[in-house]
Amino acid sequence: MKILVTAGPTREFIDSVRFLSNPSSGKMGYAIARAASLKGHDVALVSGPVNLPPPPGVTFLSVVSAAEMFDAAVQCFVDCDAAVMTAAVADYAPGERFAFKRAKRREGLTLDLEPTKDICAHLGQIKGDRTVIGFAMEDQDAHRKAESKLVRKHCDAMVLNGPENIGGERATVEIFRGGGGGWTQPQSGSKAEIAAAIVEILEELTGLEEP
Amino acid sequence: MKILVTAGPTREFIDSVRFLSNPSSGKMGYAIARAASLKGHDVALVSGPVNLPPPPGVTFLSVVSAAEMFDAAVQCFVDCDAAVMTAAVADYAPGERFAFKRAKRREGLTLDLEPTKDICAHLGQIKGDRTVIGFAMEDQDAHRKAESKLVRKHCDAMVLNGPENIGGERATVEIFRGGGGGWTQPQSGSKAEIAAAIVEILEELTGLEEP
Repeated sequence: MKILVTAGPTREFIDSVRFLSNPSSGKMGYAIARAASLKGHDVALVSGPVNLPPPPGVTFLSVVSAAEMFDAAVQCFVDCDAAVMTAAVADYAPGERFAFKRAKRREGLTLDLEPTKDICAHLGQIKGDRTVIGFAMEDQDAHRKAESKLVRKHCDAMVLNGPENIGGERATVEIFRGGGGGWTQPQSGSKAEIAAAIVEILEELTGLEEP
Repeated sequence: MKILVTAGPTREFIDSVRFLSNPSSGKMGYAIARAASLKGHDVALVSGPVNLPPPPGVTFLSVVSAAEMFDAAVQCFVDCDAAVMTAAVADYAPGERFAFKRAKRREGLTLDLEPTKDICAHLGQIKGDRTVIGFAMEDQDAHRKAESKLVRKHCDAMVLNGPENIGGERATVEIFRGGGGGWTQPQSGSKAEIAAAIVEILEELTGLEEP
């Protein structure tokens, strides 16, 4: 099947040099793209700025901002059977971006941030019979928030992970499946191992094990 | 001589996962640390989060925020003869940091940012007969701003570079020397070449060519 994978952080620029972002390394998303490709699936990887080479055999699209990632993901999703939304998309972006570096001012700075478009929720809304797996990064009231995200974003499964996974080689996740599937036990392993498990769940959800 | 080099960006966290930063790769600072070390100088490298291995033979301190970089730089500077302030330190940091990830809110978010402590200006103020080279990243009215920074921050030289240098392997810089030294011609080259030129200027300024 054809799978869209989003990965990495986005950067929301305030002026020509300052941005809002998060420490996402892209490792989990790249591992999922690689695992899916190794199983013979056709993968489109839409990635924010990270320090990783794209896995071989994967269609690669590089983006910077949440708005760019939204456009690239929506476009790629048109002919995909499924999407795995691993990217740590910025939830907020500055209302305006200054073309030049703003000089430092002693009195500080008030930044008005606007919510970005929710890519995962949008794909969930337009998915039809396609499958969407979301990621929830939560560190407080995590299970309830992940379950609520699955419903609100019309996902078929939600992978819950915490900030302690960011940037590392290993991860611990729990996966919540919609339609009464409930929670898996927490799984720990290398990101390659977790990625393989997520691709397996995706294959089960779609019933499309063969590419 | 013993040289403090600062490098990379800093990250100013808003909550447990979101931060303000800039795209500095640390390449220029690491190249300067390497060039100085190769010439036999004793180098302390204070670095924000980057994807580079510390050059061999260099004392390495890893920091995240502007406040941490301030503390590390001030402490290292105590027994240094000179400092090269390459780091792209965040000018602003959130007034408060939330311990947990804040939920996305439809109505947006207003961030109140406070100016960070200016590390270069502080070292300039306390330097005595030590030498401080600053970096100015400017894209508008650049020469005037760099000259003004040299005076205001009590630096001995100011390296002017633009956002187009960020992250690349090459750089174009102009260097302004205090005490009537004036501007050099623009120099372009690999960051290793530019770094070697900056170390030479530092040696001239200090009169300490031999370690």
